[in-house]
Amino acid sequence: MAILSTRLTRILNIRYPIISAPMAFAGGGALAAAVSRAGGLGLIGGGYGDSSWLGEQFDAADGERVGVGFITWSLRRSPSLLTDVLKQHPAAVMLSFGDPRPFVDEIRAAGALLVCQCQNMEHVEDALDVRADVVVAQGAEAGGHGALRGTLTFVPEAADFIAAHSPATLLLAAGGIADGRGLAAALMLGADGVLVGTRLWASKEALVKERHQASILASNGDGTLRTRVPDIARQLPWPAGFTARIRRNAFTDRWQGREEELARSVAIEGPRYQRAFAEGDPDGTAVWFGEAAGLIHAIEPAAAIVGRMVSEATLQLQRHAGRTPG
Amino acid sequence: MAILSTRLTRILNIRYPIISAPMAFAGGGALAAAVSRAGGLGLIGGGYGDSSWLGEQFDAADGERVGVGFITWSLRRSPSLLTDVLKQHPAAVMLSFGDPRPFVDEIRAAGALLVCQCQNMEHVEDALDVRADVVVAQGAEAGGHGALRGTLTFVPEAADFIAAHSPATLLLAAGGIADGRGLAAALMLGADGVLVGTRLWASKEALVKERHQASILASNGDGTLRTRVPDIARQLPWPAGFTARIRRNAFTDRWQGREEELARSVAIEGPRYQRAFAEGDPDGTAVWFGEAAGLIHAIEPAAAIVGRMVSEATLQLQRHAGRTPG
Repeated sequence: MAILSTRLTRILNIRYPIISAPMAFAGGGALAAAVSRAGGLGLIGGGYGDSSWLGEQFDAADGERVGVGFITWSLRRSPSLLTDVLKQHPAAVMLSFGDPRPFVDEIRAAGALLVCQCQNMEHVEDALDVRADVVVAQGAEAGGHGALRGTLTFVPEAADFIAAHSPATLLLAAGGIADGRGLAAALMLGADGVLVGTRLWASKEALVKERHQASILASNGDGTLRTRVPDIARQLPWPAGFTARIRRNAFTDRWQGREEELARSVAIEGPRYQRAFAEGDPDGTAVWFGEAAGLIHAIEPAAAIVGRMVSEATLQLQRHAGRTPG
Repeated sequence: MAILSTRLTRILNIRYPIISAPMAFAGGGALAAAVSRAGGLGLIGGGYGDSSWLGEQFDAADGERVGVGFITWSLRRSPSLLTDVLKQHPAAVMLSFGDPRPFVDEIRAAGALLVCQCQNMEHVEDALDVRADVVVAQGAEAGGHGALRGTLTFVPEAADFIAAHSPATLLLAAGGIADGRGLAAALMLGADGVLVGTRLWASKEALVKERHQASILASNGDGTLRTRVPDIARQLPWPAGFTARIRRNAFTDRWQGREEELARSVAIEGPRYQRAFAEGDPDGTAVWFGEAAGLIHAIEPAAAIVGRMVSEATLQLQRHAGRTPG
């Protein structure tokens, strides 16, 4: 499958240019390890800062080479989390959603690759300022937190900017990439590889409740929205400009457009949200998947997902390049 | 350039799978003819229904084979426009934004290809119901009117649906495609070709004022938003669910989030908007471009734009398929 060899596969010494998104709660050590074993690189989701949970997830990765990702503004509230995690020798540390500056020296000193996820061109400038090894251009199609740029325009624009200002920096495309067509498209747009969230959220190894995963199979790509309501329900101080893409369901139907009322009744609605999430109720809580829902028709092992992405992308690339006159 | 031969180029008998978006006001006969002469197919923008303007634009196309596109809900208010236009023997008629049913028989009887532009999966179902020859999957990156799905997920999902239900129907990708990387990516995603708006809005032949075109060169892809404000200012009854992507400027800064106030003061603000538009003032009116702004660095002849898209896409496809082990 040499056709998928890129600067990313060479620098990371991996077989395929596929990295798993460090999804909070869902992306544990088993999923990260499975993605790495399948030839990509798995990232454990650092989430909102639970040191013992993170320790368990590195244990679950069972010595497999993996990385980790953090929500940057949240990491600032408990920076010792990074120090703890770096003792596990992650291959890469990804920072998303906030100023990376306070953390870059420590990450670099530990020998981990510095990955900065970006949602707009200003973020890309910031990432180059801190000399990120890898920039992730994340489009609005992505499940979970993100912003407004579409993947299809953001990736080539970021690629041009990087080529002009820091050509050795690698670029990953994120947001809506769930199959080999998306991987092949990302390479055409100028990315060195892809970051995959939603498709791996719908894997056997993801830490996602069964009824939540069942609901992605019942949804098409129209069935999601970008919203602030889960962050209000959880009283998480997400910075302005970031929203979450989640499934459209009874919870979002009830609260979207009534954010102030939700904030006022959070003493009741907050615990109700958390209970529904813990129980795997797909209606009373956020269900965290993106627009790629319409491309996902089975919950499968991560290795099968990565393998099919690779073979499908290879086929697409060969088929089009080998095209004969019509 | 046989590498870019697709079902679309064969069925339309064109050299390259590139069709110009029928941009209201901006996409006149000169632009459409230039795109057709360059090897694609140009579509004249039918806009909001001005029969004499449309006649002039077909004259400006000067016998070149072109098509035309209509805003479907608007066409319902003046259906004779379609009857008039069909006398010009357009190669294709594209319908966007509304129920195509009232018009399909007349289009088909005139021997024109029926193109239905879609913004979500429900629209795709409708397009197959009326046996559209071509479905356009338009993502939210697009300039002008559209909806919320991202191009990167919508195109492959539409491709799967079409393959399952009406495999002879062709598929175009639209929204954010402005260079050869976007064209190559669209082919990877399963499209038979692309519909190009913003990149051709920024062409010499487009009917766009100089200062409006200058403002796209000063903007990156972060500099746009989706909004209802120009439709409120113009008192155009756009159906719910559709918004316009335009440049972020003094006009949108002033009115975005204050839509009701704008509606109340439309007796003053409406004429002010129209005057600014007519004068080519880039601050006091909507400037109609999409997220591809960040990929556009010169106002060029349409033939140069099409030619570079073709050579760049060909190179991208060959380069990746020919990749050797790293």
